[in-house]
This record gives sequence, C-alpha cells and structure tokens, in this order.
Amino acid sequence: MANPVRILGIDPGLRHTGWGVITAEGSRLSYVASGAIHTEADAPLSERLRVLHVGLSQVIEAEWPDEAAVEETFVNSDPRGALKLGQARGIAMVVPALAGLPVAEYPNNIVKKAVTGTGHAEKAQVAAMLKVLLPRSHAATPDAADALAVAITHANHRRPASVQAAIVRAVAGGR
Amino acid sequence: MANPVRILGIDPGLRHTGWGVITAEGSRLSYVASGAIHTEADAPLSERLRVLHVGLSQVIEAEWPDEAAVEETFVNSDPRGALKLGQARGIAMVVPALAGLPVAEYPNNIVKKAVTGTGHAEKAQVAAMLKVLLPRSHAATPDAADALAVAITHANHRRPASVQAAIVRAVAGGR
Repeated sequence: MANPVRILGIDPGLRHTGWGVITAEGSRLSYVASGAIHTEADAPLSERLRVLHVGLSQVIEAEWPDEAAVEETFVNSDPRGALKLGQARGIAMVVPALAGLPVAEYPNNIVKKAVTGTGHAEKAQVAAMLKVLLPRSHAATPDAADALAVAITHANHRRPASVQAAIVRAVAGGR
Repeated sequence: MANPVRILGIDPGLRHTGWGVITAEGSRLSYVASGAIHTEADAPLSERLRVLHVGLSQVIEAEWPDEAAVEETFVNSDPRGALKLGQARGIAMVVPALAGLPVAEYPNNIVKKAVTGTGHAEKAQVAAMLKVLLPRSHAATPDAADALAVAITHANHRRPASVQAAIVRAVAGGR
C-alpha cells in the first residue's frame, strides 16, 4: 500500500480561516489536527492578511502536509464582499504554494457532495458525516470542520474509487 | 530636512502587477525604479499568486522601500472578477506587511486627483503628469506608471502641504 498522504484543507475567510489536516491511506482517512486562524476586524487589512499568512505558514511547518486543498467559497452578488474574500483566499492559495505543495481548489457544492453524497447538504449534515468519516475530529470547531471537509474532498478526488468506497461504507447505504 | 523616504507603489492585478519606487524628500519627488510582474494566464492560480509573491519580495529586497501603498482598483459589478482581483490584491498587501512595511491603500480616483488634480483624469493625462513629476520615469511601462502614481499619492497624503505645492508648481497653474 502507498504511504499515507497528508492533506491540508483550508476554508478561507478574512475574519476566520479554518484549517484541517488528515491522512489518506488507500480508502482509510484519519484525523490529524485542525484549528482556525482569527483576525481582528478593526486591524488594518495588510495586518490581517499578515496574520493569516504567518498562521498558515506555522500550520504547514508543524503539520508538514504533502498536498493542500482550498474551498472555492460561493461568490454572492456583492463585489466588495467578493474582493475581501478574494484577498483572504489569495493568502490561503499562496502559502502552501510557497512551501512547494500542490494546491487544489474545490467548489462548495463538490465539498458537500464528497462528504454527504449531496451538493445541497445542510451544515449540520456535513458536521454529522465528518464525525462518521473522522471519528477523532469531534473537537473540531465549525471553521475547522469545513476545512476538514475540503481535505476529505481532495482525498476523494485524488483517489476516487477507494475513498468513495469509504464514504459509501460510512453512510451505510444512505446515499 | 528629514531623510528621504522610499515609497513602493503597487498596482495589483493577477495578469500584471505594476510596481514603482520613488523617494520623497520634503516636496521633492525622485524616480528610483519601476517594473511589472507578469503571470501566465494558463498557469494554476496558486502558481500565479506564488510568482507575484516571489516577484514583489524580490523588489522589496532590491529596492528596500520604507513604506508601501496599494491601489484600491475600482470594483465593477462582476463578483467573479472581484474575487480574482482580490486574490492578487491580497498578495500585494501581504508581501510588504511581511517585510515590516506600513501599507496604505488609495482608491483609484484619489490617485488620479493626487497626480493630475482631478479624480476623473484620463489615463493619458496621468501618464503626462507623471513625466512632469518624475522626469526620469520616461521608460516606465503603463503597468508601472499606475504604480508610480500610487507612490506619488502616498507621498502626497503623508506630507500634504509640501507635495501639493510640488504638484501645483508642476502643473504651472493648470489646476
């Protein structure tokens, strides 16, 4: 069997950026660590982005992931909100790239589908499936839970058959 | 007189990010260097952001600016375009912050007003005024010209009276 691959999932946001690390070994997924990086709403933008950059760099140094995956958060109709989110997302994409990691991107509905079997799942459904797929992730905060879901999605897409099988087993015929 | 301050202006874009360095000593502005960082349109997003990050880091290492200023480009009504621009802008903001520089932001119309005296100036008018304010900037590319205009704006706003006077002298009563 191939060596387990360590995957860093990131759910970017200017206020809260969630991160989660899992290992995938064949169809077997294991929780490693997770957390979130928070920035002060009243700090200058450049300082908030610096905090995200330094925080994610520290996560990569501590958890030495092999690959990274970033959630493509839904862009609503507000261009100013999209610009803000884009700034945080730029940091989430560039920090793993600077560390030499390949960086994949997954739209929100693909993340939901990978974890629950449907692209229209509620947040609670994603959280419930996470506990099944990664039993040791019970302590993950909501920000971190979304990041772990992105990491699972990447495990799924880089090794479709085996991880799909794990999800099918986990939902026990519920798809 | 205070020591001249070295100002790095950045006009961020995912395809082309312009940069320009000037010194401001009282009301006296001098051109130092300028250029642009280009990314391949068909490269992965994380790689394009990495190229911008490394390029801007090299500029700061080579030109040792004291302060940075980034243009707040106009956000049109397309959220996907705003997200893309935001990602490049995040890099333009975070690289100087990581180097310990204060980072100011200026909206596009303030940049035009600082350089030409009106917020509704045409691109050609900005370019013409740049040649007057920074005679040695004649070789600057269009991307770099916008970045130099941002640097002048910052010189203006950090020392309003003296630089305003320089602009008034430069336009020779044309305001």
